[in-house]
Amino acid sequence: MQDQITIAKKAAGEKAAEFIRPGMVVGLGTGSTAYWAIQKIGAMVQQGLDIKGIATSEASAQLAKELGIPLTSFAETQRLDMDIDGADEVSERLDVIKGGGGALLREKIVAFHSKQLIIIADEHKYVPTLGNFPLAVEVIPFGWEVTNSKLQTLGCVPTLRKKQQEIFITDNGNYIIDCAFGKIENPQQVHNALHNIPGIVETGLFVQMAHTVVLGYEDGSTKVLQR
Amino acid sequence: MQDQITIAKKAAGEKAAEFIRPGMVVGLGTGSTAYWAIQKIGAMVQQGLDIKGIATSEASAQLAKELGIPLTSFAETQRLDMDIDGADEVSERLDVIKGGGGALLREKIVAFHSKQLIIIADEHKYVPTLGNFPLAVEVIPFGWEVTNSKLQTLGCVPTLRKKQQEIFITDNGNYIIDCAFGKIENPQQVHNALHNIPGIVETGLFVQMAHTVVLGYEDGSTKVLQR
Repeated sequence: MQDQITIAKKAAGEKAAEFIRPGMVVGLGTGSTAYWAIQKIGAMVQQGLDIKGIATSEASAQLAKELGIPLTSFAETQRLDMDIDGADEVSERLDVIKGGGGALLREKIVAFHSKQLIIIADEHKYVPTLGNFPLAVEVIPFGWEVTNSKLQTLGCVPTLRKKQQEIFITDNGNYIIDCAFGKIENPQQVHNALHNIPGIVETGLFVQMAHTVVLGYEDGSTKVLQR
Repeated sequence: MQDQITIAKKAAGEKAAEFIRPGMVVGLGTGSTAYWAIQKIGAMVQQGLDIKGIATSEASAQLAKELGIPLTSFAETQRLDMDIDGADEVSERLDVIKGGGGALLREKIVAFHSKQLIIIADEHKYVPTLGNFPLAVEVIPFGWEVTNSKLQTLGCVPTLRKKQQEIFITDNGNYIIDCAFGKIENPQQVHNALHNIPGIVETGLFVQMAHTVVLGYEDGSTKVLQR
């Protein structure tokens, strides 16, 4: 039996897959909600849907391969029609915090170049104001200590991400610093302030990038929000 | 015998070293002009000057070790009093293009956190307008092809940097794309436009970061410019 939160994630992921049209190049997100979108896309491909995927992480590439979804890359195509990816928080303005899974940089590269970005999330991720979830920031290992000190001056509590006592390393060989802001009233301003610090590669703030948000509810229903 | 250009570089590097005071933590730049500053600092240390260096590249760290300059790191200290580094171009507004040597990211991290940045250059680097020298941009390998395409839309001719037929890899594991703009009338605007592309880690534009510029001339003289 699936728990309630899984029902909500699955509903959002499967609903988003319905937006895909034959011939599209589709960005495949990372995480526990994107998982359900990729599962659904795999089923659609097995029923004859002709699309290609670009994965945002090694994990999603692996899952796509197992499901028989043909993968392509930016070396082969510069065209990306639709990107479906999860979120840690979604605001009423459809701004998004991503990065809990640590794939924010590749996710943002894919999202940026996609004609459409569909964000999928369970209902609990939908919040009036971003910031309760710590904001992930990808940083260059060189000088991370001084980058971390600078982050403190911007009004957050920064924590270097670890995994089983070891420093967490991203797919790009960098570190993640999780920045607890509490509340982010102006996401663009916060993103700019962080991004202006040399050594910060990218932030998990996706400001006005999502075209569509699909929320999944624990009763299995969905709601589609559009910017 | 030294050629003229070497005389100019040496003059600038040695003059800059005179600004160092005992007890300082000093950023050690990278390249053929910073080389002379590091040589001079090494001689001063051998005569009893008590300072510590933070290197901006593996190459400069190696040189400092050979000369007996004690090195520290951001893991040990968050304080950096002065940074001395070279440039590919310096404008009359004291904006700078760096990155010809490929160390722009670490150089910018060190420069950003330094109380003072002294840029050293031979007279030929001093130009009315930046941009004749291609602007180096450090990019994440993932999706570099689509990053490259995006760069083209910003009015430059981008070229992936290679070294002996192989893709050049930075100390941080990234690629460099050299962007030939011809003329960069508004460096801040160009930096922002480039830096807003996810996948671009840093640009070689150091806008209003240099406090002092020391120019070296082929007759061995120097000129000190201050912002």
